[in-house]
Amino acid sequence: MTHRAKIRVRYAETDQMGVVYHANYVVWMEVGRVEYARAAGLPYKELESAGFFMAVTEASCRYLAPALYDDEIEVETHVEKASARGIAFGYTFWRGEQKLGEGTTRHLFLSREMKPTRLPAEYHAVFGIS
Amino acid sequence: MTHRAKIRVRYAETDQMGVVYHANYVVWMEVGRVEYARAAGLPYKELESAGFFMAVTEASCRYLAPALYDDEIEVETHVEKASARGIAFGYTFWRGEQKLGEGTTRHLFLSREMKPTRLPAEYHAVFGIS
Amino acid sequence: MTHRAKIRVRYAETDQMGVVYHANYVVWMEVGRVEYARAAGLPYKELESAGFFMAVTEASCRYLAPALYDDEIEVETHVEKASARGIAFGYTFWRGEQKLGEGTTRHLFLSREMKPTRLPAEYHAVFGIS
Amino acid sequence: MTHRAKIRVRYAETDQMGVVYHANYVVWMEVGRVEYARAAGLPYKELESAGFFMAVTEASCRYLAPALYDDEIEVETHVEKASARGIAFGYTFWRGEQKLGEGTTRHLFLSREMKPTRLPAEYHAVFGIS
Repeated sequence: MTHRAKIRVRYAETDQMGVVYHANYVVWMEVGRVEYARAAGLPYKELESAGFFMAVTEASCRYLAPALYDDEIEVETHVEKASARGIAFGYTFWRGEQKLGEGTTRHLFLSREMKPTRLPAEYHAVFGIS
Repeated sequence: MTHRAKIRVRYAETDQMGVVYHANYVVWMEVGRVEYARAAGLPYKELESAGFFMAVTEASCRYLAPALYDDEIEVETHVEKASARGIAFGYTFWRGEQKLGEGTTRHLFLSREMKPTRLPAEYHAVFGIS
Repeated sequence: MTHRAKIRVRYAETDQMGVVYHANYVVWMEVGRVEYARAAGLPYKELESAGFFMAVTEASCRYLAPALYDDEIEVETHVEKASARGIAFGYTFWRGEQKLGEGTTRHLFLSREMKPTRLPAEYHAVFGIS
Repeated sequence: MTHRAKIRVRYAETDQMGVVYHANYVVWMEVGRVEYARAAGLPYKELESAGFFMAVTEASCRYLAPALYDDEIEVETHVEKASARGIAFGYTFWRGEQKLGEGTTRHLFLSREMKPTRLPAEYHAVFGIS
């Protein structure tokens, strides 16, 4: 499964080079995986309410072409790898047919006490954990 | 008492007009009042550890001249008005002798349960509450 | 005319009080007025391409109830006052029927040289300038 | 050469997990390399004035322990690899003796026209280009 989330570039996200400041793609990845989970039936908010957090342990992004103010960007998100312990998402950024960049994030599932934990079986299908 | 905090403008804070994006001044006001409180002997972190929060109920800013990338800005902060219930801070933004803008924030003291509360007497001196 | 723009609260926009950090409402006002202008027939990007900029000279916000992670917020935007020299927008933030806050921004129209200018007549209707 | 830049964590940088939101480390890397360049004798602003830009082509970060509100973080920056065409920086984030994370960014030197260019010899020493 892949999911595409739409993002309209805000003026606040540009910088004086006249393009989107690179750290914002990392925020867009958050939008991507949250909308992925929602589409798969699990608003991330509910996961947190149930006492499970997805702490980011790694994030990376490759920039191919700059996103510009007011662009309609699509973040395509998929699960790269997942277990009861953690998950990795892959992202591709599109403006129409043009690929603007791609990235990955890795996460560890944490309990309310911020300790590593195993994600209960009821949530496995959402993330394709087998 | 007034306190001046220094801020170096980050590239991330600029926008495609080539100046600092206006919402960042609101963040700089946070830096200003936190450093004011620290200078007055109370790191804001300690106030929160003690179970007291300063929720923002109002923020406003007037922009006179744009701050630019890499500028060294000074945020001059003072208490405009304070009681055990809440506080208002006033801010002036300087680049050298040039006034770039000014702003105010109003806050309500909240308990850990996010309910309005009275700030205990031990913290009154810090904020000039009489 | 009023326009309502939808915003989904990002995790990035929350802070450790568990609510949306207050400066983000100022960014949301930008989303509000940009979508207002688009709905009125003028993407702000086109205004900039034509050599006209809306510099922010004042921004203020009153906070009534906190916006939370993943909330669907609506920013209702209207023009408070407009002339060929400048414009003021008013904003109301809603979560369903609940008013979360309200704000205003004031702007000066600038030329490409960042000098005050008069907005040409062709753009007056968009902003209700008479 | 390595350079250490100090950063005080802002409330704005925290999220509702009670830690620094991960995308902010990418902003801190910007602070790190800008202060590195300044310490090496070249404020990045001057490089831009001379018509050279360091476009980010890749950014990555590994998170080992969360940074917290009001922490004094040090970003230790070094040049990993540099040529007249581009440069890679490495970063380590410290809170006292504790390593909080590490990252890298890769950059391409661009001209004012946003085309790949060669950095003139006069700037080579700053970045250790031989």
